[in-house]
Amino acid sequence: MAQEANTGARKFLKLTRPFEMRRGGVLHDVVIAYETWGDPARRHDHAVLIFTGLSPSAHAASSTEDPSPGWWEDMIGPGRPIDTSRFFVICVNSLGSPFGSTSPASVNPATGEPYRLTFPVLTVEDIARAGHEVVVALGIKQLAAVVGPSLGGMTVLAYCALFPNEVRNLVSISAAARSTPFSIALRSLQREIIRRDPAWRDGNYTPDAIPVTGMRLARKLGMITYRSAKEWQLRFGRERAHVERKPGDPFGIDFEVESYLENHAVKFTGRYDPNCYLYVSRAMDLFDLAEHGSSSVADALQRFTVERALVIGVETDLLFPIEQQKEIADGLQGKGREVEFHCLPSLQGHDSFLVDMDRFRPVIGDFLQKA
Amino acid sequence: MAQEANTGARKFLKLTRPFEMRRGGVLHDVVIAYETWGDPARRHDHAVLIFTGLSPSAHAASSTEDPSPGWWEDMIGPGRPIDTSRFFVICVNSLGSPFGSTSPASVNPATGEPYRLTFPVLTVEDIARAGHEVVVALGIKQLAAVVGPSLGGMTVLAYCALFPNEVRNLVSISAAARSTPFSIALRSLQREIIRRDPAWRDGNYTPDAIPVTGMRLARKLGMITYRSAKEWQLRFGRERAHVERKPGDPFGIDFEVESYLENHAVKFTGRYDPNCYLYVSRAMDLFDLAEHGSSSVADALQRFTVERALVIGVETDLLFPIEQQKEIADGLQGKGREVEFHCLPSLQGHDSFLVDMDRFRPVIGDFLQKA
Repeated sequence: MAQEANTGARKFLKLTRPFEMRRGGVLHDVVIAYETWGDPARRHDHAVLIFTGLSPSAHAASSTEDPSPGWWEDMIGPGRPIDTSRFFVICVNSLGSPFGSTSPASVNPATGEPYRLTFPVLTVEDIARAGHEVVVALGIKQLAAVVGPSLGGMTVLAYCALFPNEVRNLVSISAAARSTPFSIALRSLQREIIRRDPAWRDGNYTPDAIPVTGMRLARKLGMITYRSAKEWQLRFGRERAHVERKPGDPFGIDFEVESYLENHAVKFTGRYDPNCYLYVSRAMDLFDLAEHGSSSVADALQRFTVERALVIGVETDLLFPIEQQKEIADGLQGKGREVEFHCLPSLQGHDSFLVDMDRFRPVIGDFLQKA
Repeated sequence: MAQEANTGARKFLKLTRPFEMRRGGVLHDVVIAYETWGDPARRHDHAVLIFTGLSPSAHAASSTEDPSPGWWEDMIGPGRPIDTSRFFVICVNSLGSPFGSTSPASVNPATGEPYRLTFPVLTVEDIARAGHEVVVALGIKQLAAVVGPSLGGMTVLAYCALFPNEVRNLVSISAAARSTPFSIALRSLQREIIRRDPAWRDGNYTPDAIPVTGMRLARKLGMITYRSAKEWQLRFGRERAHVERKPGDPFGIDFEVESYLENHAVKFTGRYDPNCYLYVSRAMDLFDLAEHGSSSVADALQRFTVERALVIGVETDLLFPIEQQKEIADGLQGKGREVEFHCLPSLQGHDSFLVDMDRFRPVIGDFLQKA
C-alpha cells in the first residue's frame, strides 16, 4: 500500500548514514517523518518530543500548514496541556509505520522493490533511536520532556534508557516496561489472522488486493481489547442493530455492538499497510526494558536520569494493566526524582488517552506546567 | 464433520413428536444424547441434571461402560461433590452440539442432507427443553438439582424459568442471565473468523476440507478470553518457546504463550463441527432471561420456584464477570429461598470450573450434601 499523500505540515529527515537495527540488519537512506508545533527558537530549552501509539501518524495536532485535526488535537496547542505557546513540540512517525517514515512498505534502495518481509526485525529501541535522530538534527541537546501513550510510552522508556541526560521530564501513559503474555497472545493472534488471509500472500500482496479481511478482523479484535467491558455495557447494553438482516444469513449483525465494530474496522482497513502492522505489533511483544538494566525492569528504571516523571494508567485497561503502570512508577522512585503516579478511573480502557480528555488534560497539563 | 463414534455409556432419546424451536422452525426425529451415573432407582427423589458449556459432550465422567475420563471427572462419582452413590446423575449433550444430539451437522430427515445453515435459529431455551425431554422420558417429575457452568449455567436459568416446580436446587456456575456486549463482541468475532475462512463455503464445507484455519484462530481467541492475564503472567512470564524458528519467518512463534495456544487450538480443531459452533455460540448471545419476566432479569429470577440456589463466580472471569453472578444471586433473594453466593479468587478466569477443582469441589459438595 502506498504511503499516504504528503501534507504541508509533514517534514522529513533523511539520514545519510546507515541505520543499524537493534536485532541485526542495516537500513540505508532512512527517512523519518515528523511534524512540529510552536516556535523553533524555543527548541533548546523547551522541546517536547511525542511518540505515538501503534496506528497514528505524526499529525498529532492541526497547524496552519495542515489544519485537519490531529490524533491528539485536544492535548496540543496554545494554552493546551502540551502548550505550544511555551513548548516547541515534535511528533515523530514511528520507524516501521507507514505514514512517511521508512517501513516495510518503503522501497529498499538496494533492490528497487519494497522491503516487505525483508525488512529487519523492528524493535521499540529502533523507533526511539529514529526519533533521536530528529532531535539531534534539530540541534536539540536535551528535551524538556518526552511523552507517549501505549507503544509511544514504551518508546519513551526506551528513549530514556538509551539517551541518559538528554531528557528532563518523562510522561508515560498506559505503557509497559515489557508486554504481558496476555497482550502478547492477543497481538500474536491479530497477526496470525492477517497472515492467514490468503490475500496476504506471505507479505507479497499487491496494492489493489491487500488482505482486507484479515486487517478488518484483526482491527475488530484490537477494538474489543482497547476498550472495556464496563464501557460497552453502559454504551450498548443489549441494544439491537438498526440493520436489516439478510434472509438466509443466520450469523449477520444482530446487536448494536457488532454494527459499531464493523463500521470502525472498515474505516481502519486500507489506511494501514498490513506488513507494517505486523512489524510494529511484533516490536511491542519483543520490548523488554530489563534488557537495559543488569537484570530487571526495576534496575533499568533506576538508571534513568530524568528529574521528574509522570506515569498515568487506567483502571479498566486490559492490555496495559494498572499494575504495569505502578511497576514503572515504583521503579522510578528514588535518586531525588519527583514521580507522580495517576490511576485514572476512566471507563474506556486502553483507549482512554484518546477519548477521556477531561481526565487526562489536567494531569498532563499540571505536570508540564512545572517542567 | 461426522458425529463422534458412539460409546458404551451414551444413551439416545428419540423424540417421536416434532420439536418446535423457540424462534421458529420445527425439527423432526430429534435425538438427544445423554449419559447417566448412579442408581436409576433413585431418580425420582435424587436426580441431578447437568448442562454443559459450549464444547463438551455428555461424557462428564467415566463409568463402567466408558472408562475414559469425562470433562468434569473430579466433580462426579461416588463420594465426589456430585455424589453418584447418593444421586442419579444425568448429563445431556446440548441440542445443536455435534456430540450425538440433533444439530446442524445432523441429516434433515425431510431432505436426506445435513441441515447445515437450514437448521433453525438455536436458543438456550431450546437446549433446556431438549434436556427436559430426557427428564420426562426417564419419568422424573422433579429434579433434586440442575447444575451447569458457563452456557450450562445459562441453560440452568432457562430450565428453571421454563419448568417451575420441577427443580428444588439450582447451581449456576460462571453463567449469565444475559450476555454482555463485550462477550457478544468476542463471540461475534470468533464466528466471523470462521465464516471468513474460504473453506467454510457458506456452511457447505466437506468433511475432508473443513475450515480448520478459522476454527483454530477462533479457538485461540476463546482460549485467551477463557483464562486471565494474571494466570498467564505467573505461568508464562516472558519465557521463550523451545521451538526452532524457520528462517525467513519473522512472525513465527517466539513466546511460550504462543506455543501453548497453538498446541491447544490444533487439538480442538476437528473435534467440533464448525456450523454447530456457530449456532451454539450465537445462542449464548441471544439469551436474555428478562424475556421470562414481565420486564427484567430480576423479575424473571423472582418467579423461580427453587428452594435453594448456589451461584458461583470467579473474580478473574472476563467473559462472565463477577457482577453478573451477583446479579443472579441478588435476583434470587427472597420468597424464603436459601441463596448462597460464592466469589472465588481463582486465577484461571472463566475456565476455573474445569481446572481449579480444589476451590469448586467443596463449595458444590457442601451445597448438594444439604440438598
